Formats: sequence, structure tokens, C-alpha cells
Amino acid sequence: MQHQPHSRSASDKHSLEAVIESIQPLDTAAQARTRERLDSLTKPPGSLGRLERVAVQIAGITGNERPRLNQRTIYVLAADHGVTVEGVSAYPQSVTAEMVRNFARGGAAINVLARQTRAEVVVVDLGVAADLPPELPILHRKIGFGTANFARTAAMSLSQARAAIDLGISLSSAGERPAPDVVCLGEMGIGNTTAASAIVAALTGLPVASVTGRGTGIDDATFERKVAVIDAALRLHQPDPGKPLEVLATLGGFEIAGLVGVVLGAAMRRIPIVVDGFIATAAVLVAVELCPAARQYLIAAHRSVEVGHQAALERLELVPLFALDMRLGEGTGAALALPILDAALALLSEMATFDEAGIAGPTSTTQAIG
Amino acid sequence: MQHQPHSRSASDKHSLEAVIESIQPLDTAAQARTRERLDSLTKPPGSLGRLERVAVQIAGITGNERPRLNQRTIYVLAADHGVTVEGVSAYPQSVTAEMVRNFARGGAAINVLARQTRAEVVVVDLGVAADLPPELPILHRKIGFGTANFARTAAMSLSQARAAIDLGISLSSAGERPAPDVVCLGEMGIGNTTAASAIVAALTGLPVASVTGRGTGIDDATFERKVAVIDAALRLHQPDPGKPLEVLATLGGFEIAGLVGVVLGAAMRRIPIVVDGFIATAAVLVAVELCPAARQYLIAAHRSVEVGHQAALERLELVPLFALDMRLGEGTGAALALPILDAALALLSEMATFDEAGIAGPTSTTQAIG
Repeated sequence: MQHQPHSRSASDKHSLEAVIESIQPLDTAAQARTRERLDSLTKPPGSLGRLERVAVQIAGITGNERPRLNQRTIYVLAADHGVTVEGVSAYPQSVTAEMVRNFARGGAAINVLARQTRAEVVVVDLGVAADLPPELPILHRKIGFGTANFARTAAMSLSQARAAIDLGISLSSAGERPAPDVVCLGEMGIGNTTAASAIVAALTGLPVASVTGRGTGIDDATFERKVAVIDAALRLHQPDPGKPLEVLATLGGFEIAGLVGVVLGAAMRRIPIVVDGFIATAAVLVAVELCPAARQYLIAAHRSVEVGHQAALERLELVPLFALDMRLGEGTGAALALPILDAALALLSEMATFDEAGIAGPTSTTQAIG
Repeated sequence: MQHQPHSRSASDKHSLEAVIESIQPLDTAAQARTRERLDSLTKPPGSLGRLERVAVQIAGITGNERPRLNQRTIYVLAADHGVTVEGVSAYPQSVTAEMVRNFARGGAAINVLARQTRAEVVVVDLGVAADLPPELPILHRKIGFGTANFARTAAMSLSQARAAIDLGISLSSAGERPAPDVVCLGEMGIGNTTAASAIVAALTGLPVASVTGRGTGIDDATFERKVAVIDAALRLHQPDPGKPLEVLATLGGFEIAGLVGVVLGAAMRRIPIVVDGFIATAAVLVAVELCPAARQYLIAAHRSVEVGHQAALERLELVPLFALDMRLGEGTGAALALPILDAALALLSEMATFDEAGIAGPTSTTQAIG
């Protein structure tokens, strides 16, 4: 726990560069102790597969050889996108604000999954293009009424992008609410698959058509327009993949920038980060370009049907836990991963060892009982 | 609920043929109502992917358009295998009995996962090759002290196989314990990947080497021996793939036959069945060969690392929910699927509709918002 004072001071500074510098490698001693315990449990070594690797990763993140995820927080960051005026989405922009109200009432998919998984949903308005009533039980942190249309100009200024990242960094600090033991990345913003595709294309150099999908469900003509809009914007701005902060500011959005901050803040505080779908993964890509050390703090929940999601996961060398053809966002995929993480950590802590159970080991002398 | 009296009478008969005949197609009217509700919820149609399909399947199985899985039962059927004398396993046969004691004490992986997922573990001794103390809190239904060695003779007689199936059928009947709303298939038996590979090879006609894996973790020499033993046994017995009951009796084991019965009994009672790994899937393959109508009652939880598992799932046209490199059995994969099923059904029941939330639909007139 020696990292806490250090982390807090970096956070207080609110300097992105200080936060990035403060992110440490995983605790290999805790990982070794966890691996040793896993091999002593009443099962063939390695037979719990990915669950064992997840337990070891979380031990390394937290520095605790038998960690538990008690406080679980799903950050649903919401914002609008100027690029929607180009006609790239199946739904009108007003749906972003309507869905924020739905989150606040507890009626959305992420609310249901949070209740199922004993998680808290924290909704943050970073840039919804509507006046949301101040009594709405969300965090009101509006930076603007939607980004600018990146088909014509940069979506955000650099200072807006930094402000959104700073907000994201601060979210997981121990303040008015309990500090999370695990964070899930969620988002809402009509048009944000367009921004995510643009970011992934800009950072990976992959062709726009190969990282652009149907979002909430657009028809062929809208899909063609979406690809053309992104292609033209990348020609217009010529974003430099070596400058991820500029890529982010140029293409948006506020919620994506906020998620970059959530990733960096959680990694600084040694909190496991559960990645959601395509938009969250675009934010993760920016965060890891800014700070490669943050990668080890990430657990990819699922692979969505958005074609660019797989490309972004591959670039990040993240292997998702499952692929259930989901394409909803909000953090729904990340929330679904929580019971798998809980299972991994419960097995680690609660299973009997061979010694405790008085059970014989393997007969053969093979090294490969694993 | 009109099926209940019918099901019970078929069960009372204890005639395998009557049970098979009583298994009905899914309730398409309930499925249609569930699909309609899913499309009214505040999300792009179809965006919950596989979760929506699972909800529709369970509605069709239960005849309830908004089902819940309150009583969840994991049947862990245990038995020993005569073929272990051929040296095909990494662990001694005594481990089967030791693990049954571990299950009874609550120290095994499946106990931990059952606690995590609010499921009940029902351990059944169908043929463990040891005297288990009668006070052990399991169901004592021993048919024999392990099967015969199928490398030399049939593992079971046809009447033993039928007795094990009948026991499996009876397990999910509403009797001394609450009737399950969902059943998970689990098993324990040193040597049972050898029996499972033999059954899958016999029923599919696939080469033995292509459906045989490392089980609990055998070395190269043991693996070669395992394949040779199965190959020789199939040449000796020449089991007819058109006679699945004979294939089962010839190759074993008691716990696999019991799981065939669990599948048929649950399908008869319109209870969703969560399939576990390779051994459970071999039993499912026998059950579906006996009764193709049972297939629609099955939900494949995971794909294990056993190479034959994928082949068996493909033959069954079942797509697993996840693949986490597990190879433990006991029902662990099936238990891990329960939170996913719960999530699917909670979303179906608890999400707000577009009308309730006052949210706009798509702007475009595309048919393809799904």
C-alpha cells in the first residue's frame, strides 16, 4: 500500500504528465505468491485457465495476493458529438440526453446489469448537448454542449481534451464516494462510434473502412457516408499518430477523453480496469499510447460486433474474456465480466488445498500436469 | 404449466422410451412475446446480441415470457472407470473418491462457484470404486465399483446403462428437494476423458487422435497410450453409431450415462440445461442421438481446451458462451454461465421500454437498426 500517498500527490497536481509518470509496473512478488497458491489448490495445475491468469493479474495490480473486488464502480461518461450533423448515426442527438435521464432513473441496460453485479453506476455529463436539470443525480461536469464537428474543425481544443482527461483521472480518487476496487469503463454519446473509428484509424494507420461498423444500426447509405466523412476528416487534419493527445482532441469526444483519464487515474491508483466495447477501447488505445505502463492494468471484457473493436484489441494485445455479439456500450460488456473476475478471486481464496483435503497428486512424473 | 402432470407421469413410468417421446418442441408463442418485449426496450434492437437469444430460448423452454432462474442445481455425478488400469490418466483412481469427499466438505472449485452463483451442488455417487461412508452428504446411488475396462470388455451392461440413465432422469423431479429452474451438468471421474473421447469418436466417426486431449495433464507417452487404447477398443467392439445406447454401455461410464438421463429428464420437465465441458458434452451427444428434440433445451456454457470438445459442440451445433481455457469439469464451466443467463433474464424483465422512458426512436427509415 506504499503507493497511495505517492498516487495522491500526483493526482493533486492534476498534471497529466505527472500521472503518467506515476504509473508503476505490476507487483511481481504478489503475482508469484498468487501463482503458488493457485498451484496448491485441489485441481490440476492450470486447469482453471484464464481465471487463474486473471487472478494473478489482479494480484499484481493491487499488490494483494488474495484480492477481492468489494467496491465496483461503472463510470458512464456521456457527451455529444458535432459530427452527427453529417448524418452518420441511426438515432437523433437528443437520445444522448434522454438516455442520461434513463440512467438516472435506473431503467437502462447498464443499471440492470449493475444491480445484478452489485456495482455502482456513476453517470457523468462531460458534454451532453442539452441543459440537464441540476437535480438529476449524476455528476455535472459539462465541458461544452457537444464537441465541434470534426469533419470541419478540431472536435476539441487541446485544453478541453486535457480538462476532460483530468476529470476522468479525478473520478476514482477517494473523495466523497468510496474508492473503487475495480472500475468499469462505460459511455453514452450518439455519434461516438464515428469518433472511435476515426481515432482507431488515426492511431493504427488501418483503413477507415476496416475499422468502421454499423454503430447502433445504420443502413448501407449511412455506412458509406460515415466512412467517407471519417476519410475526409483524416485527410483534412492529417493527425500525427505519434501525438495521441492531438489525435484525441482533433476527433473527440469529451466522453472518450474522460475515459482516457479514468484509465490513467485507475492505473495510478493500482485499480483493475475492465474495458467495455469499441468506444471504451478507442479511449484505452489513446491512454496506452500516452502511457504504455497502463496496459497491464486492463482486463478486456468482451469483443463487440463493431469491426474496429477487434482491430483495437489486437493493437493493444488484449484478449477479451467473451464475445456475445453485443454492441450496446454503456459499460454493459464490462459489467458482465465482473462475475467472472469474482469467480476467479473466490476460487483463489476459498478452494481447499491438496494438503487441506488430503488428496493424492499425479501418479506420473511428467512435468506437464498443467 | 400444463406440461407438469404429463411430465410426471412419464417420469413415474421410468421408461426411457416414454421419456424420450414426451420431450416437446419449444413454446414458440412465448418466444415471440419475449422477442417483442426485447425490441421495445431502451437499446438498439438486437444490440444485446447473444443475451437476447438466450432469453428467447429460455422463454421457449419454460413457456414463460419473462422467466427467472431461482432454484439452480448443479448435478455432479461421480464414478470410476475400469480403463484407468491401462495407464491413461495423470492421477490415481483414488482421487475420484477423495474429490467426492472434497465436494461434500465444500472445498472444491465447483463448491466455490456454486456459492458465487447461488446454486446448489448435488453430488451423486453412481459408481465410485470405493466405499463412501453413508453419512457423507451426497446421494448414494452406486451401480457398481467403477465400470469394467472397455479395452477388454463392455464398460457396462445395457441394463446398467439404463439404470444410470433412469437415475439421472429422476434427479430433476420435484421430490424431496426443490425442482430446479435450471440444471448444470457436472461430473467427476478419473479416466473419464478417455471414455468421453471414445464415445465422441464412436458417434461422430472422427479419428480418435482428433478428439483426444491431455485430460488432467498427461505427458506425451501417456497421450499416445490413451489414443492407442481407445483405437484398439473401437476396433474390438465395433460400436454402431446408429445405436447410441450401445455405444454408451460399451464405453461408459456410469456418470456419463447418468448425465444422459439428467438431460432427458430436464428436457422432459422443460428445464434449461447448461452444458459443461468435454465429458458433459459427450453425454449430451448421446442424449441428442437418442432424442433430437432435447437439443433445443441445451445452452453450451464454454469451450474447454480438450480438443474433442469443439468437435462434439460442432456436431451438436451448439455455440458456447465463452472459452476461457478451462479443463476442470465438475460443472465449473456451466456454473460460470449462470450469471450470464441471469443477466439476460434481468435485462428482459427490468429494463425500461422506449415508451416508459419517453425516448425517440431511430431517425432513418432503415430496416436495419438491429
